[in-house]
Amino acid sequence: MNTIVALEVSDVRFPTSRQLDGSDAMNPDPDYSAAYVVLRTAEGEEGHGFVFTIGRGNDIQCAAIASLTEQVVGRDVEALCGDLGAFSRQLSADSQLRWLGPEKGVMHMAVGAVVNAAWDLAAKRAGKPLWRLLAEMTPEQLVDLVDWRYLTDALTREEALELLRASETGRTERTGRLRGEGYPSYTTTPGWLGYDDAKLARLCEQAVADGFDLIKLKVGGDVTDDVRRLGIAREAVGPDVRIAVDANQRWDVDEAIPWLRKLEPFDPWWIEEPTSPDDVLGHAAIRRAISPMRVATGEHVHNRVMFKQLLQAGAIDVLQLDATRVAGINEHVAILLLAAKFDVPVCPHAGGVGLCELVQHLSMFDYVAVSGSMVDRTIEHVDHLHEHFVHPVRMRANRYLPSESPGMSAEILPESRLRFRYPEGAAWDIPT
Amino acid sequence: MNTIVALEVSDVRFPTSRQLDGSDAMNPDPDYSAAYVVLRTAEGEEGHGFVFTIGRGNDIQCAAIASLTEQVVGRDVEALCGDLGAFSRQLSADSQLRWLGPEKGVMHMAVGAVVNAAWDLAAKRAGKPLWRLLAEMTPEQLVDLVDWRYLTDALTREEALELLRASETGRTERTGRLRGEGYPSYTTTPGWLGYDDAKLARLCEQAVADGFDLIKLKVGGDVTDDVRRLGIAREAVGPDVRIAVDANQRWDVDEAIPWLRKLEPFDPWWIEEPTSPDDVLGHAAIRRAISPMRVATGEHVHNRVMFKQLLQAGAIDVLQLDATRVAGINEHVAILLLAAKFDVPVCPHAGGVGLCELVQHLSMFDYVAVSGSMVDRTIEHVDHLHEHFVHPVRMRANRYLPSESPGMSAEILPESRLRFRYPEGAAWDIPT
Repeated sequence: MNTIVALEVSDVRFPTSRQLDGSDAMNPDPDYSAAYVVLRTAEGEEGHGFVFTIGRGNDIQCAAIASLTEQVVGRDVEALCGDLGAFSRQLSADSQLRWLGPEKGVMHMAVGAVVNAAWDLAAKRAGKPLWRLLAEMTPEQLVDLVDWRYLTDALTREEALELLRASETGRTERTGRLRGEGYPSYTTTPGWLGYDDAKLARLCEQAVADGFDLIKLKVGGDVTDDVRRLGIAREAVGPDVRIAVDANQRWDVDEAIPWLRKLEPFDPWWIEEPTSPDDVLGHAAIRRAISPMRVATGEHVHNRVMFKQLLQAGAIDVLQLDATRVAGINEHVAILLLAAKFDVPVCPHAGGVGLCELVQHLSMFDYVAVSGSMVDRTIEHVDHLHEHFVHPVRMRANRYLPSESPGMSAEILPESRLRFRYPEGAAWDIPT
Repeated sequence: MNTIVALEVSDVRFPTSRQLDGSDAMNPDPDYSAAYVVLRTAEGEEGHGFVFTIGRGNDIQCAAIASLTEQVVGRDVEALCGDLGAFSRQLSADSQLRWLGPEKGVMHMAVGAVVNAAWDLAAKRAGKPLWRLLAEMTPEQLVDLVDWRYLTDALTREEALELLRASETGRTERTGRLRGEGYPSYTTTPGWLGYDDAKLARLCEQAVADGFDLIKLKVGGDVTDDVRRLGIAREAVGPDVRIAVDANQRWDVDEAIPWLRKLEPFDPWWIEEPTSPDDVLGHAAIRRAISPMRVATGEHVHNRVMFKQLLQAGAIDVLQLDATRVAGINEHVAILLLAAKFDVPVCPHAGGVGLCELVQHLSMFDYVAVSGSMVDRTIEHVDHLHEHFVHPVRMRANRYLPSESPGMSAEILPESRLRFRYPEGAAWDIPT
């Protein structure tokens, strides 16, 4: 019997705060990090997964992942990969660890990392990129992946089955189109708050030259600055390129509304994270007040129950799932199904460390087998840290080309894991 | 200058799973635990705080608390205790650690433990029990404790000031009444799922003999069992003693409603945690469907933004805050103010390790200085583990007598901390 023989955790941190890459209104100095896990099998296979964090606390995230060792080591690999629905439900259901959430924060993300490492392993064993492994499952197999608890007032297993069966037709054609055209993306590279006006203008022009038709700017620090920066960006990109804005949770509900009205002349494509990610009713109130401007959120939305409510309340126009915020692929399948039911496009959050690498699989699976559409769908793209991945994303102009490598694209190069290991790695020897 | 010289963390676990104390539909075998913190000052003072967990993962919680060391050690004690609002906001605002929530789960509870240890220290220095320290603050001082971010669409600083000023009259009289009569409580001791029918009946009768007029039963495992057990309890206590039921998040929305209708003949006083604590809209839907039965939740509600929405949505009749789930006393003050604004009674969750000890201070402060009422208010009481506390709760029949000892009553006896320290303590040597 081939079993899981080890769950290895490492604390990997990139000193990105030295350049102000990734600076926004809530996160002035992130060190992009990965709480990284490798599952090893007796036969020498590996499954890789991680949680993205922004520096301090990555060690706590690592400890949470390590706490799942006992539940994973010793398992039969064949059985595990054959029923990832059960595996995922078991990890989330440990009653003592569940208390630390429940289903939120450090412990929930730890489950996600381990579940994703198991998916990486399963996809490698199947010799398929994850998006294709998922997209080739039957509707019955897909609904079995989901933990339906707390969802059935919005979406039942049977409704999900119907929805998946309806999009079974055309899977082959859509897979072909995806391989030919790739999947749309947008760029946040120009828009970090830490960049000066000249750099902003230059990077906006560069983004258009690179083929992007949607860029994103961080806002929420100071309204005068936001108006000026949006003006610069609009002038740089012209009237036809869309500009989304991202407030990173800076505002109260009654503060967001007048602030956003001042940005309306620049025709923002969506307003991202106007307030607390927990505030379903707040997002709904903002959306009602600023319509037809569109509201987006999701990168900090902690589980399927919260996404369910955002959809039920009509709080969002765009659902931005994050690859490592929830309990892994299984919960993502639930979220994609909910979004499809409510006909809200999914435009994943990415950037950070490896989020682009992971999340492409979800959007591509969504296109082939769930929503069946690329209309108004786009994946965030930030051009940072891809060089550390064994299978980095492949871009053609503004399109993600689908990964053809077996697995989930989660693997960081061994030499990078060593160099950026915190605090022992050579990268952390440099005086800051 | 007197400074904080150490933040010491210890992993304390009581092997309660050996007796099935605390067993419920979601938590079959808890080992009641405390992720325990002591702040030490240069002058030898101590502030104690903790997060309650149910066993595995208490080490992760300890690691999260320890991660705050750098932000605390070296601080001026006078300045810290003089502006606990600023202290609490600073701990929550560390942008890198905030990413691990934000404001939820392990990291948020860690902030709560440290904030509460600071309050314990401040109350000891003032020579007052915490409830009295709070109840003697001016309305201005109290509103300065709160992080108003994300609250102002439901309650502004100015509204809170008005509310507190209105209840300033009568503080002295209510303090006197509290000392004379104590504060009402109810007991969960009879109702754990792990107990057999005979033990249930015997403990119900004992509860009435002990003076309780409200008991609570765990439900949600099996509807036939629930009906039988509620019947036994109702017969044991008679028609005049109230029986609350607690489902510990077992149901989906559409499952809760018919199940609860079967319990209606036994006249439940409230229905606690019918579904996911994250499901604001779900609680609202259940409440609408089962009215006039009353809905309660809160022990797993992770922050003030969630409580705000439960109140805005009309989702609850009873707000059950938990002493260690949120970011400490400062966030509790926000929650008590929200509850007062929406006129919903606060009936704290307690039990576990030391939750009764902590939470009495909040209810008593609420009575004296916020809501000004004990009507339909009651604190959970479970008769477990009090013997490990330096200042255990003092009961007279079903009433909590107010603590008169300086501090927050959080301190566990040094010998208990040693004996139950995990895994080194002598209590963990016994083969299980």
